[in-house]
This record gives sequence, C-alpha cells and structure tokens, in this order.
Amino acid sequence: MHAFSVWAADLDPVFKLRLFPEAPANLYDAAQYILGLGGKRIRPVAVLMGNELFDALHPDAIPVAQAFELFHNFSLIHDDIMDKAPLRRGHPTVHMKYGEPTALLAGDVMLVRCYELLSHLQPDVLGRILRLFNDTAKGVCEGQQMDMDFEQRSEVHLDEYVEMITLKTSVLLAACFQAGAILGGAGTGSQQHLYAFGKNLGIAFQVQDDYLDAFGDPAKFGKQVGGDILANKKTFLLIRALETGTPAQQRELRELLEYRGADKVARVLELFRAIGVDAWANELKQAYFQQAWQHLDDTPVMSARKVALQELAEYLIQREV
Amino acid sequence: MHAFSVWAADLDPVFKLRLFPEAPANLYDAAQYILGLGGKRIRPVAVLMGNELFDALHPDAIPVAQAFELFHNFSLIHDDIMDKAPLRRGHPTVHMKYGEPTALLAGDVMLVRCYELLSHLQPDVLGRILRLFNDTAKGVCEGQQMDMDFEQRSEVHLDEYVEMITLKTSVLLAACFQAGAILGGAGTGSQQHLYAFGKNLGIAFQVQDDYLDAFGDPAKFGKQVGGDILANKKTFLLIRALETGTPAQQRELRELLEYRGADKVARVLELFRAIGVDAWANELKQAYFQQAWQHLDDTPVMSARKVALQELAEYLIQREV
Repeated sequence: MHAFSVWAADLDPVFKLRLFPEAPANLYDAAQYILGLGGKRIRPVAVLMGNELFDALHPDAIPVAQAFELFHNFSLIHDDIMDKAPLRRGHPTVHMKYGEPTALLAGDVMLVRCYELLSHLQPDVLGRILRLFNDTAKGVCEGQQMDMDFEQRSEVHLDEYVEMITLKTSVLLAACFQAGAILGGAGTGSQQHLYAFGKNLGIAFQVQDDYLDAFGDPAKFGKQVGGDILANKKTFLLIRALETGTPAQQRELRELLEYRGADKVARVLELFRAIGVDAWANELKQAYFQQAWQHLDDTPVMSARKVALQELAEYLIQREV
Repeated sequence: MHAFSVWAADLDPVFKLRLFPEAPANLYDAAQYILGLGGKRIRPVAVLMGNELFDALHPDAIPVAQAFELFHNFSLIHDDIMDKAPLRRGHPTVHMKYGEPTALLAGDVMLVRCYELLSHLQPDVLGRILRLFNDTAKGVCEGQQMDMDFEQRSEVHLDEYVEMITLKTSVLLAACFQAGAILGGAGTGSQQHLYAFGKNLGIAFQVQDDYLDAFGDPAKFGKQVGGDILANKKTFLLIRALETGTPAQQRELRELLEYRGADKVARVLELFRAIGVDAWANELKQAYFQQAWQHLDDTPVMSARKVALQELAEYLIQREV
C-alpha cells in the first residue's frame, strides 16, 4: 500500500519520459508537451490504488494507469481546441503552441496510443478493461457535447447538469478505480463499489470547484475568483439559484447575466448568498463525499487497506472552502 | 466469393443504418451524417474479400469491416477540419454543417466506436487485429502530419512523398486486406502478400489521382482539372518535375508557383509535358500496379479465388488516363 504522494511522485517521471517515437517531430513533440506540463496524476494513481486495495500490483497495472492518464491528456487537448483556451496548467495550450491542426492530430494519436497500451494486456483482464475504457471514452465525449449544448440553452436543469458533469469528468475517475479493482482481482460487487466511490468523489470535487470559483479565497484558490460568473457559465450555483430563488431574485439574476458592470461578480455573489446557494453547495458536496465514503466503507476489504484511498479522497476535497 | 459490386451494394445499407445512440443528438447525428454520404466502401469490401480469399466469412468479418470504414470516416472528418475543406462527396463537410467543436468530437467518438467494435472480437483474432489496427491508425496520423509539414517546405523529395502517401492513404487499404487474411485464417506469409497487395494498389491509385488532376478529361474526372496546380500542391508530378527538369525548366516551374495568371494551369501542364512527367507517371502507376498484382499472384491460393480481388484492383485503376 502506497500513499498518494508516493505514487504521484513515482509516476511523474514515467509520464515525462518519452512515450512516443521521434518522428514526425511536430506530431509527437506536441503529444509529449502536454504530458510534460505535469498535473496531479490523480487518475493513474487511482488505478494503482484501486489495484492495491485488493492485491499486489498486476503486471499490467502501469500500462493501464498510463492509458488512463494519456486519455485524460488527449481529452484536455481536444477540449482546449473546442473551448479556444489559451492556457493549460499555466502554459500555452497545445494548439496555441503547435497550431490547431497538429494539436487535433496529436490528440488523435494519443487516443490510439491508449489503445496500443491496452492491446498488450494479458487475456485475463484485456476484454474487461477494454470495454470499460470504451464506455468511459464514449461517456466523456457525450459529456463534452452536452456541455457545449448547454452553453446554447437559456435553461438547464440541475439533474441534466449533474448528468453532464458525471459524464464529462466523473466517469473517468470512476473507471480508473474500477480498472484498478479488475487488476486486483476484485469481484463484480467490489468493482461497482469502487466505480461508485470514484463517481461520487468526482461530482463532489466538481461541486467544490464551482463553489471555489465563486466563494474561494483568491490567495488560496490560485485562479481568478468569479471567472465563471463573468463568463455566465452554468454551474451548480447558477442553476440552483435560478431554480430556487424567489421570482424577484430569479428576475434580478437573469438581468445580471446581461450586465457588464465592474460590480457584476459582487452583485451575483450577494444574490447567491441571499438565495442560500453557498450553504446548499457545501451540503451537496458533503452529500456526494459521504456517498463516496459509504461505497468505500461497503467494499469488503480490511479497513487498514482503505487508508490510502481515504487519504486520496480527503486530498481532493481538502481545499479551503 | 462475391464481386466488388455485390459487396459494395450489400454493405451500403449497413453503414446507413444507425451505428450510434440517439443522444446527445448533435454528436451522434454528426457521426451518422458522414456515413450517410456514401462513398465506395472500398475498405470494408477489402476486409471481406481478403477473408473470402482464404475461407468462408469469419463471424467477426462484418464488425472488422465496419471498424475500418468507421476509421476511414473518422479520419475524413478530422482531415477536413485541418484542411478547412467545405465539401465532401458533394455535400457540406461535417464541420461546416455541425460546427468545428462537434465535428472534432464526433470524430473522436467514431474512433472510440471502432475500438468498441473490435473489443468484442473472438479471442483467436482479437489481439492480432487490434495491433494491426493500432499500427495503421498511428501511420495514418503520421502521414497526415507529414503532409502538413510538407506544405511548409519548399522542397520535398520523391521518396519522402511516397512515404507520406503510403502512410496517409495506402496503409489503411493494406491493413484492410491483411485483416481479412487474418480472419480467413491465412498464415503470416499470405498476410504479408495481402498487405503488400493493398499498399502498392493504394500508391498506384494515388499516382493516378495526381495524374488525373492534371491530365484527366474534365468530363470524366468529375472535379476541376488543375486544382492541385492552382493550389501549388506537392504531387508526384510537381516533385518529379522539380527533380528532373533541366535547370532552366526548374527555374521556370518555380517562377510559375508564384504566378497567378489565368494561364497558370496551361503553362504548368506544358512544362510537365516537356519534362515528360506525364509518361513517367503512367509508368510509375503501372509499376506499382504490377507489384500489387505480383503479390496477389504469389499468394498460395487457387487462381479462381483471386478473381474478385483482381476485379477490385482493376476497378480502382480503371479510370480514363
């Protein structure tokens, strides 16, 4: 059993090594570039921890962990193109540095590389992990499309938003834990608990992310507070406020969406507080976190083996709210 | 044994059926849209014919054929985004109809769907076809990157161009025939012959395509003759002319690349003829075609079984030159 910090430190050099051939240099340098930008390596660590919860590491654990981290980075490259994002992890995005065509193609070849890693798995796990990976990859694409569709709509319901966020971000974390469980020889029931642990943890993390963007301490949050509000982004907070505010509050909030004044963030936050979405978001986060915790609790494994996963969960949800 | 026209007619409805779920509609409608535009279905037919050359159809032959056709269409969507192409098969490209973000994502989900089809293959063929598919997919991405790199360079050598064209277009056809051979239970030697058959046929087809763009009969060619010349596209003809013309001819050709006058196409064609690249291209096409033919000839199977593949080869290279 290894702690998150140990695994993350061990894995980082793995992803900074060259996972691609030298030529064509533009293509593979672009793929390697985003891996070199770091990131917390949460997904590959989830694979390894999910495995170690049940048994010693499977010989295929590292390639499976690599495949999920590569998939995550593939999706970041393509999402950044779709969102026209200039920065990722404080550096120029791949399409800003290498141009959109090469970024698109680098994403494609990374996705193929994921499957190349998986195609060499041992027969006892190959089929199951491949199908889990496929379902997850489709879900992530569907979530991204829903996110883009929602941008064009004036109204989005909370249950739709939860479904979108689950697909776009949580199913990947869930699948990492489940893939680990498969590698560790866990039965179907335990696999489902690990999947549900990751899924609920991912949603709790997203609630927290939306909360911090609005109410976080700028000194601790590390990015501009109020960015979502300025961009009129549909978040847990905005959707809840539009669903549960009084008719007058809802009207004021809709007017503020059109507003461009310097006090826009302050006025929206004041409304959010009046409607009580700050307290609601904290409760919602705790509810998802508790569900995650419960699924881990229900996994039929000695408690002592669960410490690393509990620490990972707390690490993800530790941020100052 | 079935002829090309029989298979193509049988397969077309398969690809016009819905291969994707209903929602999110934007995403999956975009994926289905390009499949509905038709195309000659050469690649899936190549899988089925490669299989039937050796044995009755394998139960997995149709999903493998579908996966290769889906991959081809995925690559068309992404290439059209990279090339900013407005039309495909006489209709708006996916990104013109659905927007670039959705087109990008639809391509991604089609690539995942390829692997989903492959992940259900029977164990006797799963690993080999998956690895062949991966190698091919990487090659196609590398070829597309080389093509984009060449656009930025003033000089490209013929051997580099052949390598690029081989990766970008021929390895996919080669892999379809080899996948068919694997499904038909062929040994490694026969698989390699089928691969080489498809690869050389693909290059011959590309030489012909470049030739027809310059020297084709406009009434028969079906698209604007001289399009490559107007776009200064590096083709077999231009590269050969720049390599083998006299110093004066090379100088004149380089000047013509900068020229924008109405007689640009006519003047380039005159130079091409003076340098003799028209006759050279015909010989080159025949040489690749003969190599393809030889590999089929060397495949240790009764001649009568090869008729369908010979007809397919002749169909591809039948066009008026």
